[in-house]
Amino acid sequence: VGPEALLLWKSKSTFTSFGVFFLQMGWGDLGAFGEPSKETPNLDQMASEGMLFLDFYTANPLCSPSRAALLTGRLPVRNGFYTTNAHARNAYTPQDIVGGIPDSELLLPELLKKAGYINKIIGKWHLGHRPQFHPLKHGFDEWFGSPNCHFGPFDNRALPNIPVYRDWEMIGRYYEDFKIDLKTGEANLTQIYLQEALDFISKQQASQQPFFLYWAIDATHAPVYASKHFLGTSQRGLYGDAVREIDDSIGKILKHLQKLGISENTFVFFTSDNGAALISAPKEGGSNGRFLCGKQTTFEGGMREPAIAWWPGHIPAGGVSHQLGNVMDLFTTSLSLAGLQPPGDRQIDGIDLLPAILQGKLIDRPIFYYRGNEMMAVRVGLYKAHYWTWSNSWEEYSKGIDFCPGQNVSGVTTHTQEEHTTLPLLFHLGRDPGEKYPLSFASDEYQRAMERISVVVQQHKVTMVPGEPQLNVCDKAVMNWSPPGCEKLGKCLKPPKSDPKKCFWPH
Amino acid sequence: VGPEALLLWKSKSTFTSFGVFFLQMGWGDLGAFGEPSKETPNLDQMASEGMLFLDFYTANPLCSPSRAALLTGRLPVRNGFYTTNAHARNAYTPQDIVGGIPDSELLLPELLKKAGYINKIIGKWHLGHRPQFHPLKHGFDEWFGSPNCHFGPFDNRALPNIPVYRDWEMIGRYYEDFKIDLKTGEANLTQIYLQEALDFISKQQASQQPFFLYWAIDATHAPVYASKHFLGTSQRGLYGDAVREIDDSIGKILKHLQKLGISENTFVFFTSDNGAALISAPKEGGSNGRFLCGKQTTFEGGMREPAIAWWPGHIPAGGVSHQLGNVMDLFTTSLSLAGLQPPGDRQIDGIDLLPAILQGKLIDRPIFYYRGNEMMAVRVGLYKAHYWTWSNSWEEYSKGIDFCPGQNVSGVTTHTQEEHTTLPLLFHLGRDPGEKYPLSFASDEYQRAMERISVVVQQHKVTMVPGEPQLNVCDKAVMNWSPPGCEKLGKCLKPPKSDPKKCFWPH
Repeated sequence: VGPEALLLWKSKSTFTSFGVFFLQMGWGDLGAFGEPSKETPNLDQMASEGMLFLDFYTANPLCSPSRAALLTGRLPVRNGFYTTNAHARNAYTPQDIVGGIPDSELLLPELLKKAGYINKIIGKWHLGHRPQFHPLKHGFDEWFGSPNCHFGPFDNRALPNIPVYRDWEMIGRYYEDFKIDLKTGEANLTQIYLQEALDFISKQQASQQPFFLYWAIDATHAPVYASKHFLGTSQRGLYGDAVREIDDSIGKILKHLQKLGISENTFVFFTSDNGAALISAPKEGGSNGRFLCGKQTTFEGGMREPAIAWWPGHIPAGGVSHQLGNVMDLFTTSLSLAGLQPPGDRQIDGIDLLPAILQGKLIDRPIFYYRGNEMMAVRVGLYKAHYWTWSNSWEEYSKGIDFCPGQNVSGVTTHTQEEHTTLPLLFHLGRDPGEKYPLSFASDEYQRAMERISVVVQQHKVTMVPGEPQLNVCDKAVMNWSPPGCEKLGKCLKPPKSDPKKCFWPH
Repeated sequence: VGPEALLLWKSKSTFTSFGVFFLQMGWGDLGAFGEPSKETPNLDQMASEGMLFLDFYTANPLCSPSRAALLTGRLPVRNGFYTTNAHARNAYTPQDIVGGIPDSELLLPELLKKAGYINKIIGKWHLGHRPQFHPLKHGFDEWFGSPNCHFGPFDNRALPNIPVYRDWEMIGRYYEDFKIDLKTGEANLTQIYLQEALDFISKQQASQQPFFLYWAIDATHAPVYASKHFLGTSQRGLYGDAVREIDDSIGKILKHLQKLGISENTFVFFTSDNGAALISAPKEGGSNGRFLCGKQTTFEGGMREPAIAWWPGHIPAGGVSHQLGNVMDLFTTSLSLAGLQPPGDRQIDGIDLLPAILQGKLIDRPIFYYRGNEMMAVRVGLYKAHYWTWSNSWEEYSKGIDFCPGQNVSGVTTHTQEEHTTLPLLFHLGRDPGEKYPLSFASDEYQRAMERISVVVQQHKVTMVPGEPQLNVCDKAVMNWSPPGCEKLGKCLKPPKSDPKKCFWPH
């Protein structure tokens, strides 16, 4: 739920530190990607000093599965971050989710730790909130943030407010101890998260310690907020204010690296966990530029992400890459930078992007667009084939839930799940990035492209071994009633009796 | 029909030369404005060396009126480039149009000529093709190009092919003497137009002559073409190939100015005469990014244009301006640069943009969106009020003519002309540049904004004196049968008997 990412590495001479900014911003939210009011000078500068990825994707059009994919290098259907309760449904980690990241999954920080890295997550974890899923049990050394999004305020009876953790224990809850004024949109959370990043970097630099910083703050996720200094400063309203504050923070973090003299030892990557949430537009939703639909869908607006790689002295300034990339590649690329091999005992979907970043090579690889347990679409080269199409159900749509506001492409943005497996809908994303003009089934171009794509899909399906689905069972008893540390604060709440049920995923 | 503009001035020490690239490209066709495949390195560099205008408009969503507006500094409804045959219809100058630019209009080159400038138009004129409308009778000293678009091929019996002029006389016709291969998309016209520009600039530089170059080539207009060297080089297909060739040409022209040492004496402006023609998408149509609809409409996609000002040593590099601008401003700004006053005997709609360009000032001024004889909408600050909405008629739409493909905003992209004069549809273009979310009529924001807008509109309407409409009468006898010079070439055709009729304008 919400991406833009900062991955920060710092190196001990031979080590490269590593930062990922993993936020929720749409392609069209950055000036460098064409936002009409151009209010992201720092991200635009990051792009002009680094490399812009134009064909970069997330692994899922929703928060939790994307974040699990980034940290494991594996598709959610492999690492368990999906549901089989219904066909092709987006699932995530609300407070009553029973599952989370399995112990059997190897996370990037777990592997880096063995190579001597100190790892910190700032912001939302989103891989489960029960004790066994705690980020410090999965390789992180430090945590400042929350297990879920900042939804609320809740009443602490039917629903507890989301806790904020420092490392092992909670230090308060959103809306109670960490204020978010939904009326004015004011909250100083981004400033707190910024300071956490600056302090962490300073500390590691002082001790010559290589690090991995995962900056996964959720400021552009609804309910949108910004701190006082930024409120009302954007042409785009509150959402734009939040973007400006994030942009300012990222600028400060990059300048901090430069000031400390470690920018040439720190590989930084910015991207997003899903497309902008058009459902929240225009007040709290971002922009996917000219791409079709948004978050929750497997159209380009749901999964093509803004992406910038920055590593002064290594990445040529002002570069642009057409390499097909995926957030899962950050796993493999980071390991490569750290001189580590990816685990050999499991399928890793991420590839090492260094040849693309440092030598301008183009690596041939497909992009798979999953929604829950279904491969909805695949991209090979400039062609994208939809095997299934669905925006959302008529039932949800009739309640006003619209993932494609103002957009309606007949036979494409369907409100029933439409199967096209025998004759996929095919688009040429170069001529038609907005997915408005399916190629004629009878054309030579269609035949030629599908021949190539079919082989890729068949191989993918034949070798696919889905993981145990983690997002099937919900239970109010597992909510954030009494997180570790609640006793010290007098903030423990009494859970209801356990009553596990199949989760309901409408989309 | 089709804009991007190069305005080139070169100066004789105190003189500033002047270039306008006036083409047909959509906002979303340039990398600098967010085109996803980023294939315009030269225009992007022009932007990074100059100033990007984010809120720049044309005066009309169609070719001829926009071009008349640029050259006169006046709205088409004043300079006569509109029709009263039907309400709110786009009219232009097809071969059978009887009208053209009235002698009473003062064109930019006419005024510059008096100040010692040499003026050249390269490309399409579009202000009428009968003898009295010839560009050399309206201030230009040289012309290489055609009076109309390169539609065709025609049979020279029902319709003559469009002539190409050098100065006073035709030197051939499209498809006959200037090849355009509609099958392969190959034509070397852009290369010819490029060479014309380079030669003209060299000549003026050699004689220390201040100049005005109006580079109004029509390569991205359907039927789209590119020269052999560029065919197949773009991710975007033939349209992208044409864009790449134009981009390359503009890069060569700017480099030529630099090589000759006159770039600091030459003010150059790039913009477009209307939004991308989505009707021709995806094969021959461009992109308006995230803006609504395209050419022919008064939504942002029809009238907001990419715009870049370039003047090394004067305009700060990498600047971005939110000044509301209009192609008509190029008239007034050019006069200002030449040290001339705009004519005092008539209403001039263009403003002098130099304070915005050189001092970063923001001048408060409205933008009026006209379609034919109707003011459809107005922008004041970030608010845009639609007094009328119309995409096109159901009748045309049912024939497959769609100016908003894949876009449908209920109550906004209407297929009947809808009047909203008592309660205009209001959008906030900062939060909602795609015009998808009209503000609630009951909101305070609506009331406050409309109070301000109503004053502007009332004043505009009260003082509006429409000119004599020039685009009402059509007659096959006035077509390009026997243009001057046809005798020498043996290319004179026999016109049919005169039979003037009201032109039919479907949109």
